[in-house]
Amino acid sequence: MSNYSIGVDLGGTNLRIAAVDERGNLVEKTTLGTRVALGRDYVVNDMCAAIQQMAEKHKGSGKLLGIGIGVPGIIDMETGMVRESPNLPDWADYPVRGEIERRLGTRVVLENDANSAAFGEKWLGVAKDVDDMAMLTLGTGVGGGLVLDGRIWHGMAGMAAEFGHTTVEPEGALCGCGNRGCLEAYASATAVVRMAREAIASGSAPGLAEAANADVEFSAKAVFNLAIQGDEGARRVFHQVGRALGIVLSDMVNALNLPMYVVGGGVSSAWDAFAPAIFEELRHRSMVYAATAPEPSHGQGASGKVKSMGAKKTIVTRALLGSDAGLYGAARLPQVNGS
Amino acid sequence: MSNYSIGVDLGGTNLRIAAVDERGNLVEKTTLGTRVALGRDYVVNDMCAAIQQMAEKHKGSGKLLGIGIGVPGIIDMETGMVRESPNLPDWADYPVRGEIERRLGTRVVLENDANSAAFGEKWLGVAKDVDDMAMLTLGTGVGGGLVLDGRIWHGMAGMAAEFGHTTVEPEGALCGCGNRGCLEAYASATAVVRMAREAIASGSAPGLAEAANADVEFSAKAVFNLAIQGDEGARRVFHQVGRALGIVLSDMVNALNLPMYVVGGGVSSAWDAFAPAIFEELRHRSMVYAATAPEPSHGQGASGKVKSMGAKKTIVTRALLGSDAGLYGAARLPQVNGS
Repeated sequence: MSNYSIGVDLGGTNLRIAAVDERGNLVEKTTLGTRVALGRDYVVNDMCAAIQQMAEKHKGSGKLLGIGIGVPGIIDMETGMVRESPNLPDWADYPVRGEIERRLGTRVVLENDANSAAFGEKWLGVAKDVDDMAMLTLGTGVGGGLVLDGRIWHGMAGMAAEFGHTTVEPEGALCGCGNRGCLEAYASATAVVRMAREAIASGSAPGLAEAANADVEFSAKAVFNLAIQGDEGARRVFHQVGRALGIVLSDMVNALNLPMYVVGGGVSSAWDAFAPAIFEELRHRSMVYAATAPEPSHGQGASGKVKSMGAKKTIVTRALLGSDAGLYGAARLPQVNGS
Repeated sequence: MSNYSIGVDLGGTNLRIAAVDERGNLVEKTTLGTRVALGRDYVVNDMCAAIQQMAEKHKGSGKLLGIGIGVPGIIDMETGMVRESPNLPDWADYPVRGEIERRLGTRVVLENDANSAAFGEKWLGVAKDVDDMAMLTLGTGVGGGLVLDGRIWHGMAGMAAEFGHTTVEPEGALCGCGNRGCLEAYASATAVVRMAREAIASGSAPGLAEAANADVEFSAKAVFNLAIQGDEGARRVFHQVGRALGIVLSDMVNALNLPMYVVGGGVSSAWDAFAPAIFEELRHRSMVYAATAPEPSHGQGASGKVKSMGAKKTIVTRALLGSDAGLYGAARLPQVNGS
């Protein structure tokens, strides 16, 4: 085995840990429950124990290059602390990097989980052939990651790529961040369920109403299942998802002119239900997309007057690595970030 | 004199040319009318003659490092051609860089005019102490420029930083690009006049109606003059300008987390009339801004729960160089872009 690192995907529900070598081969993967309710120290203990066990097992077969940890929340890259994490409330201002480095005696790199996912897709996933890409991760919330010149773009305080909080509808639905009309309020799993319940309440979605009545845990997945069965109300919900994503992706394409934009996270399994609306918006809203769309038909629409830029195409696509993107990305961090 | 370069700001109305040395000292500046109606060849002839004259004059006092030309439109950086330029319709697909290089026997760098303006503000203006910044140029349209790590971010085809076409209102006013609700449809000089006329038509702006009746060339400047005199209708127009700018700046702050965002161009002289609405939106819509606002009071509002990130502040401010930003930025291009 070549040298390897250990990636951690610290979710609010699952704590996933993987050893990955420098070529991207998965050496070992393990999943624990995240014992959030017991408090931060339990979670750190569980994490450190699992990492130590894994490192012990592979001792001698390669050098451990370090540990990368993807955390849902805002990371202060300089101090190695979690500033804000809705799913891990007692982690704020806790020196997690220093604490884990001390316990394990190896280098630790903290990263926002959506940045890790983007980095994973860039390393081993759908974006492996480009140096510049952005990713939207549609889960309970909507995370974003931005990779420029092959490196995660952090901005000055590690807070960049919060694409989930781009305003889509200035007077729209209230978002968890306090703003109105954020992408997250239209394209997260939470939003899918809310929009389905709104449709039920309006009386316009009998199929959704029936499903919600039959299922106490009425979820985004249930809405998607109805959509693929052709239920009109469920399809309208995913049209709203795609429209919001299309508006934000148009903004991103106009602003950054990257070769690739990736949509991942759990909700992206409904890609077929929302993607048509994405491309509809892109064609009408982004003159940069119109000039760089991969198929001639995408160059039509309102911005069709902008000539094609030849070989340089804008690819908007779904992610490839599923829920492993963040894990692989986290593992990659200590392999590339200095020594 | 140290070595110098020549910058050109090729506008639809004025053709401005300046010799600037490597330290940013203005050596000479001249302004001609752009004889657009006579066709491309006349404009190129005028430009080349003026440049040659200027170069001849300063021969011997320093080396001419090259010529930078800011052009309103989409530039194909690779081929050195203008792809699209509403103000210079017959320039599309004309190999302007090659032609001017051939005539003058020196290096020519073409750049979008809004990118040039951003680069000028970064070199000698309000952003001279930061390496990363974005700029919105409010003129007839709304241009954008993005500087990352001290260099203009072009994206893959030179089309990046089209912030003026960020969607602000998905079903809003029609924009020249074909999309609805772009920033340009709310924050350009054209938009100011349109919104003023809408207010007049609605009967809610007697002051504006009177001014428009008295002035056949009713302009954004006239609306601004009324606003500073306290006219309620005119103030509401600039509130709309600031709101749209604030929404887009919030998106930009969330996406890029840069230390500085600059608002320039002719309409920015109305800064005092629209800036309060910008900061109102920033405080409510950007959690990144809330965590990095320069004054404590800016950390309030919906996103006030995000803790301050300490010394790293997000500055949103007006430009410093006025209409010279693009000229200085264009002159800087051949000084830094290879040799």
